[in-house]
Formats: sequence, structure tokens, C-alpha cells
Amino acid sequence: MPHESSPIGLHTTMFIPAIAGQGSDKQRRKWLPLCESYRIVGTYAQTEVGHGTFVRGLETTATYDPQTEQFIINSPTLTSTKWWPGNLGKTTNHAVVLAQLYTGGKCHGIHAFIVQHRDMETHQPLPGVEVGDIGPKFGYEAVDNGFLRYHNVRIPRDNMLMRYSEVTKDGRYIRKANEKLTYGTMVFVRSAIVSTAAKNLGEACTIAIRYSAVRRQSEMKPGEPEPQVLDYQTQQHKLFPLLATSYAYWFAGRSMRETYLDIQGQIMAGDFKRLPELHALSAGLKAMSTWATNEGIETCRLSCGGHGYSHASGLPKIYVDATPACTYEGENTVMMLQTARYLMKACGQAAQGNELPGFVAYLNQKGVDRCMIGDDLSLVSLVSAYQHRARRLIGKAALQMKAHMERGQPQEVAWNLASVQLVHCAKAHVQCYVLKNFVDSIEQYGHHEDVARVLTQLCQLFAVDGILNNAGDFLQGGFMSYDQLDNMTAKLLDLLAAIRPNAVALVDAFDFSDHLLQSVLGRYDGNVYENMLEWAKSSPLNDTQVHDSYYQYMQPFLKEMHKSKL
Amino acid sequence: MPHESSPIGLHTTMFIPAIAGQGSDKQRRKWLPLCESYRIVGTYAQTEVGHGTFVRGLETTATYDPQTEQFIINSPTLTSTKWWPGNLGKTTNHAVVLAQLYTGGKCHGIHAFIVQHRDMETHQPLPGVEVGDIGPKFGYEAVDNGFLRYHNVRIPRDNMLMRYSEVTKDGRYIRKANEKLTYGTMVFVRSAIVSTAAKNLGEACTIAIRYSAVRRQSEMKPGEPEPQVLDYQTQQHKLFPLLATSYAYWFAGRSMRETYLDIQGQIMAGDFKRLPELHALSAGLKAMSTWATNEGIETCRLSCGGHGYSHASGLPKIYVDATPACTYEGENTVMMLQTARYLMKACGQAAQGNELPGFVAYLNQKGVDRCMIGDDLSLVSLVSAYQHRARRLIGKAALQMKAHMERGQPQEVAWNLASVQLVHCAKAHVQCYVLKNFVDSIEQYGHHEDVARVLTQLCQLFAVDGILNNAGDFLQGGFMSYDQLDNMTAKLLDLLAAIRPNAVALVDAFDFSDHLLQSVLGRYDGNVYENMLEWAKSSPLNDTQVHDSYYQYMQPFLKEMHKSKL
Ligand SMILES: Cc1cc2nc3c(=O)[nH]c(=O)nc-3n(C[C@H](O)[C@H](O)[C@H](O)COP(=O)(O)OP(=O)(O)OC[C@H]3O[C@@H](n4cnc5c(N)ncnc54)[C@H](O)[C@@H]3O)c2cc1C
Ligand SMILES: Cc1cc2nc3c(=O)[nH]c(=O)nc-3n(C[C@H](O)[C@H](O)[C@H](O)COP(=O)(O)OP(=O)(O)OC[C@H]3O[C@@H](n4cnc5c(N)ncnc54)[C@H](O)[C@@H]3O)c2cc1C
Ligand SMILES: [Ca+2]
Repeated sequence: MPHESSPIGLHTTMFIPAIAGQGSDKQRRKWLPLCESYRIVGTYAQTEVGHGTFVRGLETTATYDPQTEQFIINSPTLTSTKWWPGNLGKTTNHAVVLAQLYTGGKCHGIHAFIVQHRDMETHQPLPGVEVGDIGPKFGYEAVDNGFLRYHNVRIPRDNMLMRYSEVTKDGRYIRKANEKLTYGTMVFVRSAIVSTAAKNLGEACTIAIRYSAVRRQSEMKPGEPEPQVLDYQTQQHKLFPLLATSYAYWFAGRSMRETYLDIQGQIMAGDFKRLPELHALSAGLKAMSTWATNEGIETCRLSCGGHGYSHASGLPKIYVDATPACTYEGENTVMMLQTARYLMKACGQAAQGNELPGFVAYLNQKGVDRCMIGDDLSLVSLVSAYQHRARRLIGKAALQMKAHMERGQPQEVAWNLASVQLVHCAKAHVQCYVLKNFVDSIEQYGHHEDVARVLTQLCQLFAVDGILNNAGDFLQGGFMSYDQLDNMTAKLLDLLAAIRPNAVALVDAFDFSDHLLQSVLGRYDGNVYENMLEWAKSSPLNDTQVHDSYYQYMQPFLKEMHKSKL
Repeated sequence: MPHESSPIGLHTTMFIPAIAGQGSDKQRRKWLPLCESYRIVGTYAQTEVGHGTFVRGLETTATYDPQTEQFIINSPTLTSTKWWPGNLGKTTNHAVVLAQLYTGGKCHGIHAFIVQHRDMETHQPLPGVEVGDIGPKFGYEAVDNGFLRYHNVRIPRDNMLMRYSEVTKDGRYIRKANEKLTYGTMVFVRSAIVSTAAKNLGEACTIAIRYSAVRRQSEMKPGEPEPQVLDYQTQQHKLFPLLATSYAYWFAGRSMRETYLDIQGQIMAGDFKRLPELHALSAGLKAMSTWATNEGIETCRLSCGGHGYSHASGLPKIYVDATPACTYEGENTVMMLQTARYLMKACGQAAQGNELPGFVAYLNQKGVDRCMIGDDLSLVSLVSAYQHRARRLIGKAALQMKAHMERGQPQEVAWNLASVQLVHCAKAHVQCYVLKNFVDSIEQYGHHEDVARVLTQLCQLFAVDGILNNAGDFLQGGFMSYDQLDNMTAKLLDLLAAIRPNAVALVDAFDFSDHLLQSVLGRYDGNVYENMLEWAKSSPLNDTQVHDSYYQYMQPFLKEMHKSKL
């Protein structure tokens, strides 16, 4: 997961972890000290210009030459050019490179290699290496995402990362350990992405909610002063569900990490029982949290009116930094389909009467036939409604698959033909988990009565908003009644009003510093307008009263235009 | 509506039209030739740093001094500083300024004045004028949006735009013409925004759909080559509804403009019968089209995977150029509430048995009790379902308002307490119009059988997708049955498959040039990858193999880090 904050972010977030995770003990002893003392600086080069999501389709080759005991790293085509790795363009001198391993004329699939691409003294590209920056982007201006093409570059045999498999001196390929172990790392990385997404959304909410308490606009009652825009119900409806969502994913990211740490011992001991379930959930959670954040930041920005568009708001920067998380570390739609694949398996097992573990255990239950949500919005009734919905949609997607196959479609085609529904059922599963986990977290952390009350309101808002946005799913088959649905709207509006008095405190509770937020609109002290003017005046364009470009372009242009019109 | 394309966009899109529209004949004769020959260059200064949406709340004052026959333009507070006008910062020398008119000690509300702010020779700010750039923004890098503060700047009496009202030499205030005339201009400007939104979304669809036909990724059938990502059902589901939406709003923008031109004669003759209806619709259409475009461009960008994030895709630029349209010329939520206000009036009139005009006539009808959408997805049945939904939601919002008032709330409070529902019913009304107009446009333009067939599919997709996204509205009260809803999902998937073979042709039909799109991914010839590499290599960062910043920052930094670790 790239971090714009550091000019060598990939070195610490990807390069070192890759060596630590996939290197043999001997390799770790050799390379990690070099990395940690910045003798070498590296990145992680997986993606190619023509290949991203489908790692097995990568074209870069690493062919073993037993004569010299070297691998020959090669980019056989234009489309195999490595593309996107952070800090690859201008900064790093090494990369962990993913390539198809060939030995003895046979392909053994994708493996990781440490490959040097720039000279340690001159920093010039090594012979056989074409390397450069991929050019300007939406954001990440400070990161030199790069391209790299290898023309038969030789590296020592030792530079293949050999924890899970090995190529011997004479070129034999040996598989050593269960690859599922790497799933654990993925769960961990994804839990960090979920937490970062929650944090990014929280930052955006902080700015928008604080500013909405400062901004006064329009007329609520004729003759009275303009109200804080946060008092408009529509403004609350934009922002408070996002605040609830930020809390929801914050709890989800933390729980996922804790669950992983809990079972890490089992995993290390070779017991992978709970790993598939956790791994599948982490994929969907990664996708849902980053999607929610992506949309949510922009809703926050637009809720600030015109000033949201200025960099003084800090929001455009939060957005361009956050949005790549929808794409990297597993493109979101592909992640949702991964979750769905596990759910289809689980559904099949449940149909055979097998008991399902932890997060999917509810698929074994029958649940209630009728929605029990009443005026008190009891958390139990909300969770059970979400479970009903997920159970129904998962079952339906499975039936859909089956129907396609019964009509003679091969499984892969059936999969594609059901994939919109598969993504939909995976969403329902993830939302169900997030809600259930929110409820559990209140019990766990809400010892203080006031905290528990306001967290409960946020949790109810998260649930009710989700029901209203997916009302068809809950009404379908008569589970929820029409009256219950109407009541959801009423409850939504009640919750907005109930949260209003605590809204600013709830974002202050995130405790993001002004330095972190970099937002004039979202200042803790609320002195927005003076600081807007000061911020604007400090813009380089205002160094002179008449800007150079006026003399250079504008004046001649206007003279020209004027002449042509005479 | 600012246009980034021109360095003096506001001059032609706002300054000149304001003078043409609000100036007296004499004023037009004096000022328009000066504008058109670029003797003066102007902008439109309405917004202040503390005031946007609520024009009546602007603080800038224009106080008439009969002694000198001058107006004194003043910014009495920090918050009254003009903020955002395009090209105000560094480029223009004049502005049409909106200010509270005072004469004889009395305030007559907001009026427009031509005020000079820079010297015609030196381009220096005039005495009493503080002017500058508002600083960096999300986009619009080429536009110097500016701030401006007046310290009792004097202008001649003649500089007040006097078409609709006048201040005489001795300071009497005279109202001259019906202000509703300006509504016409607003309808016209908004129709242009709707069309531009449709065009922006069409550009994004063109890039994403063309690239999705070039991009091959993952595995559909084991052992077979990677399929075009456009063959994934989930990819079609991301893009085809957006394509349909682009067509839908394109037709809507055109119809609105045509309707306006049709009734312009009536308006000029003082017959405003149809104007409120058209004006109200145009507000909601402006909001719905720009929101749909805003979300849609980002969906297109994300559907291109990692490469969407590169400026090589062209999509980030389309987004930052398009997104301000959600905010300027009437902030979207405020626009929706304007539409809702008209709908509440119309609803009241219908309840009294009055016949309603054109776009709201369906509120007089009872309509069908049960949804008639069958397997053929007849356009009539789709429109009638949308009408039913809008009618029900509008009625419900009106009841809600009434209930709040019966509980003793003043009307304004009741309005706010119902505003989430008011926005929702306005959405339903606008969507209903857009669908109905799409259907009518097919009849009007679909003479060619193949064109009519594929337009019908797009129209059905637009309708079905909208039903699925708002399923609760259609199920509520038993209007649509559960089976009908399930069938909507099946139909959606059928339509995606049916549109797939024509998808590329449908975007090629927009006929956007490569020059306009500025997108390596969306090239007409499909030669994406070679051109990606060429585009990247042309980046200034790649002018040298080792970038200066390496010697300047990186090398010393690494040495430092290295030393500190020893
Ligand atoms: C800012 C940024 C930083 C990055 N940093 C790095 C880095 O340091 N190192 C590195 O190696 N890479 C990096 N990447 C690349 C990133 O990992 C890839 O972009 C990501 O893996 C997505 O792959 P892709 O771009 O090929 O998308 P694609 O897979 O081409 O996606 C395009 C579309 O196809 C769809 N699609 C693809 N496969 C399927 C399927 N099986 N079923 C249904 N739909 C499908 C997707 O949903 C998407 O809509 C970075 C990218 C960005 C934007
Ligand atoms: C790129 C760009 C170019 C611009 N160019 C110009 C220009 O050339 N000249 C010019 O004069 N101005 C210009 N503007 C300013 C623009 O017109 C204003 O930003 C716009 O009118 C919105 O007003 P605001 O910023 O005060 O938003 P606000 O009204 O402050 O909106 C903030 C929030 O309050 C909510 N809100 C406000 N009133 C109500 C209400 N009554 N009920 C419910 N909710 C409400 C809104 O929905 C929004 O969520 C430009 C702005 C941008 C971004
Ligand atoms: Ca930028």
C-alpha cells in the first residue's frame, strides 16, 4: 500500500515486507540489514502495463541458466513492461520483481526476485534496463511511479526469494511450504487498508462537519439570521451516515486485525481452518470500505459548496490520496468476486448440512421469517434483518449459477452470467458483518453510558440508512412490511436530529490535528474566513500585483484581439 | 458557467451576457462594443467568501450619492470579500458586481453594477481595490478564480445595469420590468449545463468503453486467452447504464432548450404561463444531470483499473472540470429543493381540482394501481411506473409537510423537517421527466429501425436500472410485485448482453475526436500500450536518466539515513 507521505514509501511498505515474508532465513540475514540501513532502496514490481489483476498472466520471465547459476530477467513484449511501482521511476535502485519462473524448459508460474536496476554509485540505469517515470497522475505527485523494461538482465540464483520454493544450483525446482501462509499477510495488509479508509473518511467528515457548523447560508425562518448549514436536514443526511460509516469500518478494520493476530499462532502451526473465511471476508471488506470512502469524501467535499473545490479545504488532496485504494492491492470488483466465491462454497456446504465457521455461521441458521424491527430499532433486530437479506441473496446467486449450468453453460460462463448478483450478495454479506461487528464493538468499548448511547445511535443510523438504500432487498418476499419501511424513513430523520447536537464532538473525538488535516475549512478553532484570505494571499500568484504572464501572454493577446476586431 | 478552455472564459460566458441581459438599450450600445473588441475584459462577481447560495444575503453595498451622481461600492466586512469569480484574480479589469443597492437610506436589494478594478494602462489594481488569486484548486488550474475587496470605490450612476430597475439622478428608485424575464435566461443556461454534463459523461464512457474493449484481463475459461474486460458482466454493469444516462440527459438538455425557444415568444410578450413549470424542472434537471455525471465519470475512471488514475487516461481532467457544475449556477441540493417547492404548489393545485400544465400534468391523473411492466418492457409501462412513483412520493412529501404543520410547526420548520423527502420526490419527478422525454425522443429521432432498436434498449436499461436502484419506491404499497422485481434483475442482465455488441459503436457515435478526449486509453485506433510508453517517456521527469532531485535530495538523504543506522 503506497503512502504518499514518504519519498521512499514503497521501500518500507512493500520491498522490505516482501523480502521478510518470502525470503529464506539466509536471505533475510543478507538483505534486510542492507535495506534497513538504506544501502539499497527498493520497490515492489508486480503490475505490468498490460497486466494487473491477473497475476498469473504476467509476462516478465526469469529463466534459470545452470551454466552460470543465474536467472535471466526479461520483458519479452511491450505489454510486459513493469508499470506503476511506486518510486520505481527515479528513486530506487532495486525491486522485488514478479516473473514467470522457467527452469529446464518448464514454467513454474509466478515467483519473486530481487533485481537491481540502477548503479549504486552513479544511479544510472544498468545495462539492459530501461526505466523511467510513468508521467503525471490524478494525485501522488510526490511519488515517482515508474516503468521498467528488462532486456535479458542477469541476476545471481540467490536473488530468487526462496522461502516457499527453491531452484537448486543444477536447476531443479522444489516447492517447500504451503502458500496459504501468504494469505495471512494479505489479511493483515487489507485490515490496514480498511482502517486507513475509515481514517480518510473520518478526516473528510471532520472537515465537512466542522465547516458546516461555521458556514451560515440561506434563510430558515424569514427575518432571522442565516442558520448553520448543519441545521439543514439535507446537510445532516449527507454527512451523518458517512460519519457512522467511518466508525463502522474503523471497528471492522480493528476486529479483522485482532482476529488475524488471534489465529496467527494456529496459522504458523499449519492450522489453516479459519484462514479461508477470514481471507474471503478481508477481500470484500477492503473493497466495501474503500468504495464507501471514495464516494464519501466527494460527498463531504461537495457539501462544503464552492470552497470544497479549493485546496484550502484539504478535501481534494484527501480524495486523490485515498482513491487508488479502490484499485491497488486487489481491484475492488475482483475482490468482491473473491468473497462471493467463498460464499458460494460455504452455501454449498451449508446445503449439505455442514456446519459453517465464525463469520458465515449465520448461513446455517434459518432466521426469522418476518422482519422484527420495531420502534426501538433494537440492534438484534437490525442484525437479524441484515442476516436475512444476505442469506437470501447468497442463496439466490447460488441458484442462479445452478440454473445457468443446468441450461448447459460451463461453470466459468455461469459464473460470469451471475456475477452482478454475486457481487450484490457479497456486498450484503460484508455489510452484515460490519453491522454485527459494530454492535459487538459497542458492547466491548461502550462502557461509558453516554458513549454507548451515541455509538448506538450511529450504529442504528448505519443500519437504517443501509436498509433505505437497499429497500428492495428487505421488502422482497414480504420480509419487511410496507409500514416498517415507512417507519425506517421516520427513524432516519429522528436519528439525524438526535445526532446533530453531538456531531461536532463526534468528529473532534477522532482527534485529527490541524497539521494532519491541512484544511482551512476544517480548522479546530473555526476561524475559517480570515484564514481563507491569508491562505489565498500566500499563493505564489499573488507575489506580484500584476503577474508576469499578463505582460507575456495576456497583453499581446488582447491587443491582437482588439486589432482583429477593428 | 466557467470554461477552463479559454483564459478569459468568464468574459464571454458571463460578463457579456449579464450586460446584454440586464443592461438598458443605451447601456448595451455603450458597453457591448467595448467588450466585444476586448477594450475591456470582465468577469461576473456574485459569490462572496461568506455568501454563495443565498444571494439575498450578500453583503457588498452600492450606496448612491446624489451629490456626485455616483455609487459607492464597498465591502463592509471580511466575509463580504468577493470570492471565486473566474479570471478575477489576475486577468480581468472589469466585473459585473452584485451588491445591495442603497439610496435615500433605504435598501432595495441586490442589483448589478459594472465596476472597474484594474488600471487600463498599467493593469495595477485601482485605489481602494484589493484583488488577487484565491489559490490552488482541485482543477481549473488555468483559471485565476479571484478575490476582491472594495474600500468605498466610486463608479458613475450609469454603471448600474438598468434594464429592470433604475436609480434616477436625484436618487429615486424605479422598478421597470417583470423580473420573471430573467428566469428565461436561467432556463437557457441550465439547459446548457445539462447538455454539457451529458457530453462530459459521454466522453468518460467513450474512454472507458473503448479501453475495456482493448484491455484483456484475467481468465474467463481456463486455458483460453484473457478476455476483453468488456465481456465481464460486472464491467458492463458499471458502464452501460452510464452510457444510457448520457443519452438520456443529452435528449433532456436538448428538449429543455427547444421548449424554452418555443415559448420564448410568449415570455417576451409577457405571458409567463409555462415559465414556472419549465424553470422548476430546469433546476432539478441541472442537479440530477451533474450529479449523475459526477459519479459516472469516477465510475468510468475506476473501471479502467490503475491506468484510470494516470493523466494518460484523460479521466481525472474530465472529472475536475466537470465536478464544479454540481455547485455553481445553483448548488444541487438547493436546486432540488427549488423543484420540490414547485411540486408542492402543483400538488396543492391538483388537490383543489385544478388542471396542471405540461410536465406535471401526470399529477392530475390517477394512473394504474398495479405496475404493468411485463416481459416486453414496453416503454409505456415503464413511464407509467415512474409516474406512479413520483406521484406517490410527491403526495407523501406534501402530507409530511402538512403533518408537521398540524403539529404546530411553522411552515419553514416543517419544510426543513421534510426536506430529505422533498429532495427525494423531486428526484422521482426529474427521473420521470427524463425517461418520458427519452421515450418521446426515440419516436422523434429513431426513424431508422436499427437506431430505434438500440435506443430503445438504452432507454429500457435506463429505466430498469433506475427501478432496481430505487426498488423500495416501486414495491411500496404493492404497486410492483416481488416477481416483477426479480424479473427486473433478469431483464437488466439481458439488456447488458444485448447492448454489448453495439457498445463501442454507441460511443463512437458521439464522434468525440482524439484531440478532444486527450486520452491515450480512449484512442479511436485502440493502440493503447505503445502510446502509453511514448506518453510516459515524454514526461519532463524523463528528460534525464538521473533526475536533479536525486543529487539534490535523495543522495544526501540516503547518506544521512545510512550514517544514522551505522
Ligand atoms: C497509485 C497507484 C499505485 C500503484 N502502486 C503499485 C506498486 O507499487 N507496485 C505494483 O506492482 N503495482 C502498483 N499499482 C498497480 C495496481 O496494483 C493495479 O493497477 C491493480 O492491481 C489493478 O490492476 P489493473 O490496473 O490491471 O486493473 P484491471 O484488472 O485492468 O481492471 C480494469 C477493469 O477490469 C475489471 N476486471 C479485471 N479482471 C476482472 C475479472 N476477473 N472479473 C471481472 N472484472 C474484472 C476490473 O473490475 C476493472 O473494472 C499501483 C496503482 C496505482 C493506481
Ligand atoms: C470552479 C468554480 C467556479 C466558480 N465561478 C464563479 C464565478 O465566476 N462567479 C461567481 O460569482 N461565483 C463563482 N463560483 C461560486 C459558486 O457560484 C458558489 O460556490 C455556489 O453558488 C454555491 O454557493 P456556496 O459555495 O456558498 O455553497 P453553500 O451554499 O455554502 O453550500 C454549502 C452546503 O450548504 C447547503 N445549503 C445551502 N443552502 C441551503 C438550503 N437553503 N437548504 C439546504 N441546504 C443548503 C448546500 O446544499 C451545501 O451542501 C464558482 C465556484 C466554483 C467551485
Ligand atoms: Ca492536480
